[in-house]
Amino acid sequence: MKKSNLTRPKVLFFDVNETLLDLTLMKKQIGDALGGKEDLLSLWFTTMLQYSLVVSASGQYKPFGDIGAASLQMIAANNDIVISDEEARNIVVKSMQNLPPHPEVKDALTLLKKKGYILVALTNSNKESLKNKFKNVGLTNYFDDLLSIESVGKFKPFTDVYNWAANRMNVKPEDCMLIAAHGWDVAGALWAGWRAAFVSRTKQQTFPLAPKTEINETDLLRVAEILINYS
Amino acid sequence: MKKSNLTRPKVLFFDVNETLLDLTLMKKQIGDALGGKEDLLSLWFTTMLQYSLVVSASGQYKPFGDIGAASLQMIAANNDIVISDEEARNIVVKSMQNLPPHPEVKDALTLLKKKGYILVALTNSNKESLKNKFKNVGLTNYFDDLLSIESVGKFKPFTDVYNWAANRMNVKPEDCMLIAAHGWDVAGALWAGWRAAFVSRTKQQTFPLAPKTEINETDLLRVAEILINYS
Repeated sequence: MKKSNLTRPKVLFFDVNETLLDLTLMKKQIGDALGGKEDLLSLWFTTMLQYSLVVSASGQYKPFGDIGAASLQMIAANNDIVISDEEARNIVVKSMQNLPPHPEVKDALTLLKKKGYILVALTNSNKESLKNKFKNVGLTNYFDDLLSIESVGKFKPFTDVYNWAANRMNVKPEDCMLIAAHGWDVAGALWAGWRAAFVSRTKQQTFPLAPKTEINETDLLRVAEILINYS
Repeated sequence: MKKSNLTRPKVLFFDVNETLLDLTLMKKQIGDALGGKEDLLSLWFTTMLQYSLVVSASGQYKPFGDIGAASLQMIAANNDIVISDEEARNIVVKSMQNLPPHPEVKDALTLLKKKGYILVALTNSNKESLKNKFKNVGLTNYFDDLLSIESVGKFKPFTDVYNWAANRMNVKPEDCMLIAAHGWDVAGALWAGWRAAFVSRTKQQTFPLAPKTEINETDLLRVAEILINYS
């Protein structure tokens, strides 16, 4: 493959849920808790994301898992299903453990690592949960650092998060690239002055009002194959 | 009815969409654009709210209607329906005109006004859209002021919005009450130091991780009947 004219980002930051990890199993468990109504799943996930930003916009902090549990209770209540606080937390926490990586993820990370890229995870989940998730599925060793927004106290896509992560890795925003399967995450990164690659996994779309990402591919291996040809 | 021990808020701020205006008609029109899949409606509305916060969290501003149109395109694309930029904007703008107030709204506002309350609308929609909506359905004269977050450049529930609205009316946060049918809106108001009343309309829930509102009633007239007994 011909060398690209684009320069290499100094650090590649990876979103975790959906981007690296396959959420199919989690969604099945949440779907069961919602009486098998699979169409409520996207609504639950979007509500969790909405409320994570509601919390940050209000200057508050709550762990992502707690927000997921609260959102589950709200969606359930709207569909005449009662789920207690404890039950909701158990369902969400349990469903987020042992999520397998998407099939091409390890090959993609191996390739990028071999070609000298610095790889960092950057997630809305808390540190403990991130560490466990990676350990359970053998992802830990691929990464130079594991970052959770818990350290900032605001969720992605708040600009503060990307600024903090760049500082933490001692690089400028323009030397960072976010790789994510969420339109809101790449939008936030681009608006923070980062570069971005979008992984267009099933039912994921870029945000039409945001700048375009320089890479938009269906899986992570395709993204990696483009990145290794950067100058 | 016995006088309540609670003191009167100096200004009552009303959320507009869903709280005052009945969105049934709008949802029907959006549902039609999504191929009649009514279950996608809540997902569209939640996605619009999520992305309004994505935009604010990234230090950007886009009109609420544009975010609604972009969200409509994203949800449509996930369901193999292509909607152009122009088409999406037309659908959303058109669907937001001529929304009728919920049946009890005018009685509730009349009662509160008669009892000396100052009434202000506070919406995520832009000024022009707010004015038109109220004019079309005869709500304008009930209100002492019509406020749009357009003046702040951030959407509710960013704390800045509530602070700005309180300043604008020359009152302290603790003298303000938000009346809204959205859990995220009353949560944001309470976290900004305001008081709040929740209108538990169909498919609306409070956020379990937020402080509780002092009023939680199924419609606006019930809320008004409590407020007129405040000392």
